[in-house]
Amino acid sequence: MTDTPLLISGPFTGEEEERLKNACPSVRVATLDAVGGLSEAARGGIRAVAFKGHNRFGGAVMDLLPNLGVIANFGVGYDAIDVSAASERGVKVTNTPDVLNDDVADLAVGLALTFFRRMVVGADWVASGQWPTKGEMPLNRKLSGSKVGIMGLGRIGREIADRFAAFKCELHYHARSEKETPGWTFHADPVGLARAVDVLVVALVGGDQTRNYVSREVIAALGDRGVIVNISRGTTIDEGALLDALESGAIAGAALDVFLNEPNIDPRFLELENVVLQPHQGSGTVETRRAMAELQLENVRNFLEGRPLATPVN
Amino acid sequence: MTDTPLLISGPFTGEEEERLKNACPSVRVATLDAVGGLSEAARGGIRAVAFKGHNRFGGAVMDLLPNLGVIANFGVGYDAIDVSAASERGVKVTNTPDVLNDDVADLAVGLALTFFRRMVVGADWVASGQWPTKGEMPLNRKLSGSKVGIMGLGRIGREIADRFAAFKCELHYHARSEKETPGWTFHADPVGLARAVDVLVVALVGGDQTRNYVSREVIAALGDRGVIVNISRGTTIDEGALLDALESGAIAGAALDVFLNEPNIDPRFLELENVVLQPHQGSGTVETRRAMAELQLENVRNFLEGRPLATPVN
Repeated sequence: MTDTPLLISGPFTGEEEERLKNACPSVRVATLDAVGGLSEAARGGIRAVAFKGHNRFGGAVMDLLPNLGVIANFGVGYDAIDVSAASERGVKVTNTPDVLNDDVADLAVGLALTFFRRMVVGADWVASGQWPTKGEMPLNRKLSGSKVGIMGLGRIGREIADRFAAFKCELHYHARSEKETPGWTFHADPVGLARAVDVLVVALVGGDQTRNYVSREVIAALGDRGVIVNISRGTTIDEGALLDALESGAIAGAALDVFLNEPNIDPRFLELENVVLQPHQGSGTVETRRAMAELQLENVRNFLEGRPLATPVN
Repeated sequence: MTDTPLLISGPFTGEEEERLKNACPSVRVATLDAVGGLSEAARGGIRAVAFKGHNRFGGAVMDLLPNLGVIANFGVGYDAIDVSAASERGVKVTNTPDVLNDDVADLAVGLALTFFRRMVVGADWVASGQWPTKGEMPLNRKLSGSKVGIMGLGRIGREIADRFAAFKCELHYHARSEKETPGWTFHADPVGLARAVDVLVVALVGGDQTRNYVSREVIAALGDRGVIVNISRGTTIDEGALLDALESGAIAGAALDVFLNEPNIDPRFLELENVVLQPHQGSGTVETRRAMAELQLENVRNFLEGRPLATPVN
């Protein structure tokens, strides 16, 4: 057992890694697969893991770290971590909620605007030098005044709804229960939500409980004017059904920041004209990533110094 | 003198032109330069012009149409039309205000989001298939909470401000006089406005009075974190000064829908990385262009049938 209590694992940036290293004696592994390669003494010394990424963090890895007390996740979504397995072993899990809500909500609106107003097409229209010869770009679609449905009205979903409200959109939502809202319409049934709106914004938590929650039936209910925006997790949508609907024109389009098997996304997406695709950059601003790194480090420090965790999830 | 009272001039779409032709006996010219080529009888019959575009409509053309009573412009900005010359000749001018406010405001926010969140770069990151090999796209910049300055708080400027307010932005504005607002900060001096904000959104009317209103000094006051969004007219900004500031990094960037000499824009724009460029598509949605066409036609009809004009500007 060594006095290096922190294990760092995942694709941290140089700045993020420096901050963690400066705060605490640490050992770094690129991925959790390398934990088994550490000496028994090193593994025995680890009391906290600073974790980033979407690779599975299951019970088997936890068992390699007999004195592990906390897994501090970088990000609000901790679906990569087997929280049940952690709880069974007395390991606490923390995440970084709230500090990224604004950025993710901004991107949701940005995705909708970019899709409706075809801004990637517009940018290319100018950049290619073809504006003088091609004339006006094709007319596109008005966003303001649309009917917008939020699938999952948690903290991020609410931030998204507040923004669309300023665009005079009619707000609808589906959640486990009806919430206090400024007159937004609650739908107990996800298919009913899809049927009522033009734009369906998916803001569910990830994980097994919401897998394929946006089902083939929900997608079909959107109709051929319907647009799906997803800033949650690729798992929340039946991606095969989504691709089928996009290819056939059963829905008008999709604007997506998240996918199954990122970054190796289904190549069918790259053949589509009716999509706006972003490389999972929802929280990817300098300001927010710094705030997330600070909150992760606060959780690590609080644990190692015996103080209450800032943002525990179990 | 014929009984064809309507002259149609400008780049109308097929649908727009059909609607005008079906409403009223008309003659069409591609541009106003062709008016002189019409017979004297045809010219004498013209009582209304349905006009679209940005080419100059001056007194000389009006003098070729001795019975002209109204110039109905397609668009809110009528800076292409010499309104003084029209007034001197007893010719009324109408425009299409309000119906396009939402779309232009949507695009202003879309331009800001696309710039801050580098969504064109993100789209290319995925589309190029390089996400698996290049990893995460570079971190970008948070928009929510920024200080946003509206240059010109008319109807469109106010729509823009309302939307940015939902992104928790601190609102500032410059206008000829202080207005009633929900606590937004008034700046009597345009340079003072630029100094106070991160994002300067130009929502001025066009025309001679606002030419180069966003001057070299205003641009310099924005500073190297400053971003300019322009959805008004290319004329409102000292474009040479803007290009200099973009090239030198004196400001962080610009997101522009309008330019001098559209569509033949200054090629210096195409060399820049710190811009988002759109081909003057502010009102370019199916819904809004239809509403504009209907309002233009309403003005033509009202004039020809002796009713009050819906939206006169002189």
